[in-house]
Amino acid sequence: MITALAGGVGAARLLRGLVRIVPPDQVTAVVNTGDDIELHGLHISPDIDTVLYTLAGLSDDERGWGLSGESWVVMDRLAAIGGDSWFRLGDRDLATHLLRTSRLAAGATLSEATAELASALGVVTRVLPMADDPVRTKLTLRNGPEVGFQEYFVGRRHAVAVSSLRFAGAAAARPAPGVLEAIGAATTVVLCPSNPLLSIGPPLAVPGIADALTDRRETVVAVSPIVAGAALKGPADRLLGELGHEVSAVGVARLYAGIAGTLVIDEADAALAGGVRAAGLRCVVAPTIMSDPERAARLARTVLSAAGHPTSEGSHLA
Amino acid sequence: MITALAGGVGAARLLRGLVRIVPPDQVTAVVNTGDDIELHGLHISPDIDTVLYTLAGLSDDERGWGLSGESWVVMDRLAAIGGDSWFRLGDRDLATHLLRTSRLAAGATLSEATAELASALGVVTRVLPMADDPVRTKLTLRNGPEVGFQEYFVGRRHAVAVSSLRFAGAAAARPAPGVLEAIGAATTVVLCPSNPLLSIGPPLAVPGIADALTDRRETVVAVSPIVAGAALKGPADRLLGELGHEVSAVGVARLYAGIAGTLVIDEADAALAGGVRAAGLRCVVAPTIMSDPERAARLARTVLSAAGHPTSEGSHLA
Repeated sequence: MITALAGGVGAARLLRGLVRIVPPDQVTAVVNTGDDIELHGLHISPDIDTVLYTLAGLSDDERGWGLSGESWVVMDRLAAIGGDSWFRLGDRDLATHLLRTSRLAAGATLSEATAELASALGVVTRVLPMADDPVRTKLTLRNGPEVGFQEYFVGRRHAVAVSSLRFAGAAAARPAPGVLEAIGAATTVVLCPSNPLLSIGPPLAVPGIADALTDRRETVVAVSPIVAGAALKGPADRLLGELGHEVSAVGVARLYAGIAGTLVIDEADAALAGGVRAAGLRCVVAPTIMSDPERAARLARTVLSAAGHPTSEGSHLA
Repeated sequence: MITALAGGVGAARLLRGLVRIVPPDQVTAVVNTGDDIELHGLHISPDIDTVLYTLAGLSDDERGWGLSGESWVVMDRLAAIGGDSWFRLGDRDLATHLLRTSRLAAGATLSEATAELASALGVVTRVLPMADDPVRTKLTLRNGPEVGFQEYFVGRRHAVAVSSLRFAGAAAARPAPGVLEAIGAATTVVLCPSNPLLSIGPPLAVPGIADALTDRRETVVAVSPIVAGAALKGPADRLLGELGHEVSAVGVARLYAGIAGTLVIDEADAALAGGVRAAGLRCVVAPTIMSDPERAARLARTVLSAAGHPTSEGSHLA
């Protein structure tokens, strides 16, 4: 049993690699919901959908989000009649949001709605929201207001400096049913190469999840989303710097030092292995760029073999 | 100034006729919202949309509802993933519901959201919901449960007998801003050829509206939606019978006797003119089938000239 804490695209790609090397139903993804947003009355869970669509083989990997073969009739029309269309929702994608919103309105939990969507999409990997209770990532912009995650990320294209970050609702939230058990029972827990602050931060802020990781820290393996001082995608690099963290795999290691025993860093960062070790983590140096599913599977193999195992094919303990 | 109480398709067609013979901005439509439904988290106002789409020249007159040039990507996908797709929402139509729901979620009233939609669609006729407060038509099925309007009308294709009818929320609802003023200030008020019980019944159940009509009954002109004992569209005929009313223009006259001074009935029903008069209304016999916009304009002319005027072209007082 493998359990992975997951954000969006980077996580989804690693999960797609994982389910190529272990039976898909032996994998549990605990997914960030801090990015969730209510828009036009609809409940949208972007990271859950990215994970589900990717595992279902339906994701648009070129665009980097949403469904392949998507159309945009609703959004184009919404723009034409003066509606808010800054958050682009494809027609096929909208069906997901309608279904989720219907189920929530009928009294289902987000976990239940997610399980039903996974089933409808043929995804046998267990996909759990980190919490059924609402948690919303809020960012205070430097010299600006506090905004919700999607206004920062999509509305302002994360091209604004951030001075602080909080996860509204996290303190009162409980981990969704099965989350703590999945963390406790897994042979390996993976912290996916997602934004440490924006994607892994929210689940860690839900009481109980960080403690569950600390309790089994030696078999928690993280993958650095920072390669050669930059994020492969999104604002993780700038945000780390803006919030006072070192913008490197070492900075990631320090953030994860209490909850992960091992950090996988990219070959490009081999020189940082000492810094990672100095932060208290084992360090595995390996190719981490998941430019295709085969490379993702290779990274997944590295991650699994790194869980307490000193060496394995395709990777080495630095 | 003309004010019309309006349901869906029949009303929309008469309104389209009216705005061909009087300046469109001199017409106010007070539209039934008893059919409104919250579905998938969206607020849907079918009669308002039928009126707006028709006045905007965007309605699909062959299908009888929704927008022309519509596509169905969202609904097809929703059905594919197991969602509720019994209430068909076209892609372009969905944009309307997203915009309305957004505006309501942001604190706008239904009147305000409707005015914004009208403006976006280029409709200069004033379209008012009968009430901003929620009123929901509920039907008790014979030997069955109570269901909402859309479950009766769409879900069961109105092919079930009804034993009673109520308008939940009506007693506590207030007419939307401008409704009573529009009824009071109009030179003529028109009761469109909509279902007397299901489409005109809800506004009449909102306190103040029926009284405002009674106060000016002599210049209120109704058009019978029952022609030769049958409804042109929908279940008005069966429902009248099931609820103990005569299924004819005379039955309609009796329902409207307290609020309308004149009833326009179809040529096919010329023999019923005496019955209409016996119910206390003047009776105008004229062609009422609005098979094209020109015929709708002719009916509109008949209606306006019938308002206290004994005769006019294309119609005669029977």
